[in-house]
Amino acid sequence: MRFSELLIKKRDGARLTRDEISYIVNAYTKGEIPDYQMSAFLMAVYFKGMDKEETVNLTKAMAESGDTLDLSGIKGVKIDKHSTGGIGDKTTLIIGPILASLGIPVAKMSGRGLGFTGGTIDKLESIDGFDTSIPEERFIDNINRIGIALSGQTKNLAPADKKIYALRDVTGTVENLSLIASSIMSKKLAANADGICLDVTYGSGAFMKTKEDAKKLAEAMTDIGRMAGKRVVALITDMNEPLGHMVGNNLEVIEAVKVLKGEAEERLLDVCLSLAGAMIYLSGRLGDYERLTDEVLEKGKDMALGQIKNGEAYKKFIEFVNAQGGDTELITNPDKFKKAKLKLPVVAKEQGYLVSRDASLVGEAVLYLGGGRENIGDSIKPEVGVELLMKSGDKVAIGETYAFIYADDEISGDNAIKCVEAAYEISAKLPTIESSVYAFVE
Amino acid sequence: MRFSELLIKKRDGARLTRDEISYIVNAYTKGEIPDYQMSAFLMAVYFKGMDKEETVNLTKAMAESGDTLDLSGIKGVKIDKHSTGGIGDKTTLIIGPILASLGIPVAKMSGRGLGFTGGTIDKLESIDGFDTSIPEERFIDNINRIGIALSGQTKNLAPADKKIYALRDVTGTVENLSLIASSIMSKKLAANADGICLDVTYGSGAFMKTKEDAKKLAEAMTDIGRMAGKRVVALITDMNEPLGHMVGNNLEVIEAVKVLKGEAEERLLDVCLSLAGAMIYLSGRLGDYERLTDEVLEKGKDMALGQIKNGEAYKKFIEFVNAQGGDTELITNPDKFKKAKLKLPVVAKEQGYLVSRDASLVGEAVLYLGGGRENIGDSIKPEVGVELLMKSGDKVAIGETYAFIYADDEISGDNAIKCVEAAYEISAKLPTIESSVYAFVE
Repeated sequence: MRFSELLIKKRDGARLTRDEISYIVNAYTKGEIPDYQMSAFLMAVYFKGMDKEETVNLTKAMAESGDTLDLSGIKGVKIDKHSTGGIGDKTTLIIGPILASLGIPVAKMSGRGLGFTGGTIDKLESIDGFDTSIPEERFIDNINRIGIALSGQTKNLAPADKKIYALRDVTGTVENLSLIASSIMSKKLAANADGICLDVTYGSGAFMKTKEDAKKLAEAMTDIGRMAGKRVVALITDMNEPLGHMVGNNLEVIEAVKVLKGEAEERLLDVCLSLAGAMIYLSGRLGDYERLTDEVLEKGKDMALGQIKNGEAYKKFIEFVNAQGGDTELITNPDKFKKAKLKLPVVAKEQGYLVSRDASLVGEAVLYLGGGRENIGDSIKPEVGVELLMKSGDKVAIGETYAFIYADDEISGDNAIKCVEAAYEISAKLPTIESSVYAFVE
Repeated sequence: MRFSELLIKKRDGARLTRDEISYIVNAYTKGEIPDYQMSAFLMAVYFKGMDKEETVNLTKAMAESGDTLDLSGIKGVKIDKHSTGGIGDKTTLIIGPILASLGIPVAKMSGRGLGFTGGTIDKLESIDGFDTSIPEERFIDNINRIGIALSGQTKNLAPADKKIYALRDVTGTVENLSLIASSIMSKKLAANADGICLDVTYGSGAFMKTKEDAKKLAEAMTDIGRMAGKRVVALITDMNEPLGHMVGNNLEVIEAVKVLKGEAEERLLDVCLSLAGAMIYLSGRLGDYERLTDEVLEKGKDMALGQIKNGEAYKKFIEFVNAQGGDTELITNPDKFKKAKLKLPVVAKEQGYLVSRDASLVGEAVLYLGGGRENIGDSIKPEVGVELLMKSGDKVAIGETYAFIYADDEISGDNAIKCVEAAYEISAKLPTIESSVYAFVE
């Protein structure tokens, strides 16, 4: 096969066969196709798109380009979860213990976050002693024993996606639905769970800016999953403002513990219960339903909430932290977490209703404070971040503090204040608040 | 300026400014923009196009990326000519002496041909002793003395175009009007003539397959020329079958000599006279016309034909060959040219009208015979080629020879026969023959 011909074929709008796509992915991964041809191909895909079959073939080829996880040693139906990203997203820390407490195995492979705040691994590592690099044997054993384990990804999952994504990132070819969907789903297919729950976010703090685009991405991903023989549910959730009150690393652990103890911010709780409910549905624990309906999701949410109310989810979280060597005293007494040197108030200069303008600026504040990572290998400060005392739609008076910045120095603190001020406006008009979960796609 | 942003700007269909385009061309030429970003950019241009202003800015930036010729030492109005390519195109060999014999300076800088047959340089080098690498001083001196000189290009004209074209060639981004037009015109602008005559070919032996596409390209190029302050005329000529009877290197010199002696194949003569006529118009020798009209072109053609009829063009050709060290005995007695070992007939297997199906196959035949060059540095056989005894529309009987192959060995000769057979079909229906010059654009 000659790649230059396949490139022209796609440029001219023709469909590529499974063999052609598989050739492209493998040859590019091996370095047999040069970057300058691949980037032209990706730009042609940007303009001409890929149909469902091409997209699933691309996803499978990328999923098969490296290692796949072997979860056969784990008893039960394994359900994976993936979020397309957001600010203050600590849902994994909450949902994991809920599911594990129900006996649904949680085998979480996470990467380190690159971006505004750390990833789940960075958040858990803010708990002293927590070991995110436990060996595979202990990982499997922990799951079979207590139902939950988390590990930093060491296997070479979907290297083709890594290489292609790095090229897309510098060649203006990120924003294509087929390429976005296949990139995410290739890693999920390689991770080999039985079912996948996708949290597709939209809004100013998300990759997809509108509900409609998020829905399209959700549909593209569930299509891929179905065509690849996996059960997939996608929830479309609002990320026009950060999720919950806390944005930062140990701050988000502290908030997660609160939620598990039943003291949750309403929207964060709703997103967690919805995702957990969908995952419970996927696991089959709700019974033998053909499809996820509103009613079925409500049952799942109720079951999840029950695990918070009866204290089992909280207990499971402590068990989980303990099993990976973390200091459980921090969980039972979060006041003992390392604290930032400065706690700076963000004060309203006008009166009116708080309106979230750009959630990503809150993320940027945390990045300034040292709580995120710009380059692989950067170290992260666990103690810095933002606490949002109010949410969009809350009334604020002149001089009232509506957020705190947790900073280790004045300069980054001042920068963070400016970011948070820019993230919100204070309006005379009550903003319309969207429901936290917009829709689900199966 | 960040190239990744300019790339996205073009991808999203926005216009690039002169500074932005100039930055792109210069940074890419210097190696500051990597190939993988440039190829994605070129694919974005393929899909989103460039408007006239962007195209002229691109052309100028490429023209200014290297050396430009200094023709100030040559007296008179310098008119350059460029053909977009064809099979059996020996027009330069004919037009040059016609113009020179009228006192219009002909300063021809040519490259070696890559493709089916050699370029003008290769054709002239089939004349023993002809030196195509005369130094600049002698080049200028010859023109001032006898009106004509030809030199293989040694200066670094439009290196940006060279680098960009090489990338386009392997990334499916050749076929874009702005990119094609700017590539050709950048070299013409760097060559610095006062006027430019473009021969835009169309048909099975040309890059542009239809008259309409050729006209669009002609318009794009004349637009660039005009916006860059040059007088430009483009003729759109038929290349659905090879031009003239001979295709090869010394074979084409032999045919050119015949034309200059007044024994021309009709269509070849018409194209030569039309191009020469347009160039005479551009030189101002016809008088002070505002525009090229049919009438003006006829006057130019008549003047050109006069130089053949009065023998001056032929005499000028001999002078030209002599001035560059070529053996003029070959011109006065073309039988002395080196001959191929074999002369193989191509015989009609049916009776009917000869119809050219694909002129490029005649070119391929010559390439097989060793008369063309696949890679830079390949040597070329001057003596091989194809002689077409008949043209489209001629009646042929079963067993009648309609072409000869001049080959140096049986294998290449057989291959060439097959190519020529495939290039023509024999039909019961008289084909429609298009006029050799379809239109002109100024």
